[in-house]
Amino acid sequence: MIFRDNKGTSYNKIAGQSVRRLGSLSDCVFSVAMTLLVLDLHVPVNAITHSEGDIWRVLVALVPKIGMFAMSFLTLGIYWTGQQTQLNHFRRGDRNLTWIHITFLFAVSIMPFSTKFLAEFITYRTAFVVYWVNLFALSTLLYVSWTYATKHGLLKANVPEGLDAAIKKRVMFALVLLAFGVLLSVINTYWSLGFILLIQLNYAIAPRFSHWLG
Amino acid sequence: MIFRDNKGTSYNKIAGQSVRRLGSLSDCVFSVAMTLLVLDLHVPVNAITHSEGDIWRVLVALVPKIGMFAMSFLTLGIYWTGQQTQLNHFRRGDRNLTWIHITFLFAVSIMPFSTKFLAEFITYRTAFVVYWVNLFALSTLLYVSWTYATKHGLLKANVPEGLDAAIKKRVMFALVLLAFGVLLSVINTYWSLGFILLIQLNYAIAPRFSHWLG
Amino acid sequence: MIFRDNKGTSYNKIAGQSVRRLGSLSDCVFSVAMTLLVLDLHVPVNAITHSEGDIWRVLVALVPKIGMFAMSFLTLGIYWTGQQTQLNHFRRGDRNLTWIHITFLFAVSIMPFSTKFLAEFITYRTAFVVYWVNLFALSTLLYVSWTYATKHGLLKANVPEGLDAAIKKRVMFALVLLAFGVLLSVINTYWSLGFILLIQLNYAIAPRFSHWLG
Amino acid sequence: MIFRDNKGTSYNKIAGQSVRRLGSLSDCVFSVAMTLLVLDLHVPVNAITHSEGDIWRVLVALVPKIGMFAMSFLTLGIYWTGQQTQLNHFRRGDRNLTWIHITFLFAVSIMPFSTKFLAEFITYRTAFVVYWVNLFALSTLLYVSWTYATKHGLLKANVPEGLDAAIKKRVMFALVLLAFGVLLSVINTYWSLGFILLIQLNYAIAPRFSHWLG
Repeated sequence: MIFRDNKGTSYNKIAGQSVRRLGSLSDCVFSVAMTLLVLDLHVPVNAITHSEGDIWRVLVALVPKIGMFAMSFLTLGIYWTGQQTQLNHFRRGDRNLTWIHITFLFAVSIMPFSTKFLAEFITYRTAFVVYWVNLFALSTLLYVSWTYATKHGLLKANVPEGLDAAIKKRVMFALVLLAFGVLLSVINTYWSLGFILLIQLNYAIAPRFSHWLG
Repeated sequence: MIFRDNKGTSYNKIAGQSVRRLGSLSDCVFSVAMTLLVLDLHVPVNAITHSEGDIWRVLVALVPKIGMFAMSFLTLGIYWTGQQTQLNHFRRGDRNLTWIHITFLFAVSIMPFSTKFLAEFITYRTAFVVYWVNLFALSTLLYVSWTYATKHGLLKANVPEGLDAAIKKRVMFALVLLAFGVLLSVINTYWSLGFILLIQLNYAIAPRFSHWLG
Repeated sequence: MIFRDNKGTSYNKIAGQSVRRLGSLSDCVFSVAMTLLVLDLHVPVNAITHSEGDIWRVLVALVPKIGMFAMSFLTLGIYWTGQQTQLNHFRRGDRNLTWIHITFLFAVSIMPFSTKFLAEFITYRTAFVVYWVNLFALSTLLYVSWTYATKHGLLKANVPEGLDAAIKKRVMFALVLLAFGVLLSVINTYWSLGFILLIQLNYAIAPRFSHWLG
Repeated sequence: MIFRDNKGTSYNKIAGQSVRRLGSLSDCVFSVAMTLLVLDLHVPVNAITHSEGDIWRVLVALVPKIGMFAMSFLTLGIYWTGQQTQLNHFRRGDRNLTWIHITFLFAVSIMPFSTKFLAEFITYRTAFVVYWVNLFALSTLLYVSWTYATKHGLLKANVPEGLDAAIKKRVMFALVLLAFGVLLSVINTYWSLGFILLIQLNYAIAPRFSHWLG
């Protein structure tokens, strides 16, 4: 539906607006997916609570769910940052790019489910595979989005030199780490979980290290 | 509430902003409607799960719901793309156009319900009719929106030649296909479901074919 | 927190951004409030459904909830249009204006509850009073917002002549109609409901008539 | 992922867009968190209601939940205003700033839970500590955000003199008041609750007084 021509200025504006609305839809989908899990933090109304100690135990019992919530939030935060970096460098979109990102948003919105599923069946490999498949889909779709945009001239003129290589390396590196994590879960699911958390924290709070590696 | 006058520049800006906010409201309504269905993907906490096989069966039992979720997401993605293409070409809005789109958003937000209803009663024609009525309303409202905007001079000056015909043909074509799908459900509801999925996938991933036909 | 000075250009930009973000928050709150009620449209999974007739009865049983959903959507659509018309004419915001609108958004987000409460206890005056109080708060806050903005020079320079009078008249007229509706509920709650629906439909689809009256 | 160079204009635009999308994500997360609590306002369908008096009692029974909803809305409104004031003065973002704000948004999205927890166990100190920790995290993260942006030159050129001191004083003052509130809860939880409500109302509706103090 986005028409491509060489008329220049006026058209770029329309296309730019299209990237803007894709960003706007993404912000909303991400934020609903991020916030939705708080609905699972039910306060047990009927719990027998007669003392501070009882309340404390109620709270402690909620810790795994809060942790799961935090982990899902962290993961979605990483992919939000990754996607918006790409969108910031797109001059315009087209129909295919739009659908790559709508598919990406589907993977985003199913994340709360994968996380809940993993939290429920933490010791089972099947739950891990579901979670890894979700992360794998997110990473792959970001890679496809960038490759497609590069090939079809959708990037802005002023994209910094080396950004293309940096983004590709980064996604590839993540995919290799994720694959290693899956193999690890064959041996021990807790090690696998610890490993993925380390990767994610690295992506979120230690960009320099990941820069150095990737 | 939007006043029409011939003062030009300053007014266009206000009206443009109004189209922007309509787009912004739409992005939010779409994303809430798209993401909401994930709440139905309950992880069965009390299920008897002692082995990987049990978890696997739990997952398999969720597949229809995940499919329903994907289908609803896909459908809303199609209409989001269709609506934003129109909004990108509107120079300004007016009160009637705003209400056409608020009605459109109502049809969007009821989509999760229609999809659930269909998934629950997949073998019954009534469930199909509800679903088709919803799709029909979405398509018709987009058609009304475009016709109204064209008639009342709300389009931008630089709308590409042939866009008007292309948009109308496209919507009309969809309505004919949808009507055929309804008739098909009289014979067999599964055939009808397969047919609608084919139409939707065509709209989402095979724009060239639909271009060729429409 | 928004500082007022006479430095001109650069500051207006900041303030404009502030109005923009108020609009953006509003769009999200409105859309969540508008879409949330669809969660109440539960498909009765355990209902005994052996025939098309059974499904039809299930659907018919859902009609009041769908109607309630539509009514809430319609009402919020009216107030969204009213608020965005005001925001479009604000040159900048300030702290007080921000809080007038956050209070307005609270009234918006409680609307789904008022509507559900009314739908549940349709024959009782108390439910009506709750609903009317909510509408009254929404209208009054829009009036306060406009009066405040006018008094403190927050309007854009190019506000069309007569807009001030038109907005005030419109809100006042609505308040009078709402008050009449409350009195009507003393006699008969159904008449009162019909009356409010007529007012709302008039605001939504028949602007010319309301123009003529107000 | 945001590259820093001295190329000037074009780059600032990209970075500006990044702050814009951070604002857009924040608006959505805030509005979902703000509106979500309305889902807890269940209308008791099975309640025995034969008279206006019964309905009235149903409504009165909901008052604590409505109050809790209002309090959460108010609190989130305060932090939304605080955050947007900062974002309005950021020239561009970088990766660390993005993660400070994603962490901030996590604290925002957990607010509905903290509020529910407090409402449920209002007489217990543990519930208070949870609530205070949440508020403390929100205030601290806003402080960290501002300090970081100031140190790394992310502010716009035209930030009004004294804004830096004003923002820091304001946050510090809030932290001291919050700490005092925690201590108060050791003596009496209701006094503590009353105290925090007073602080919040002061921040929301009496900016002049807080200006005078802070």
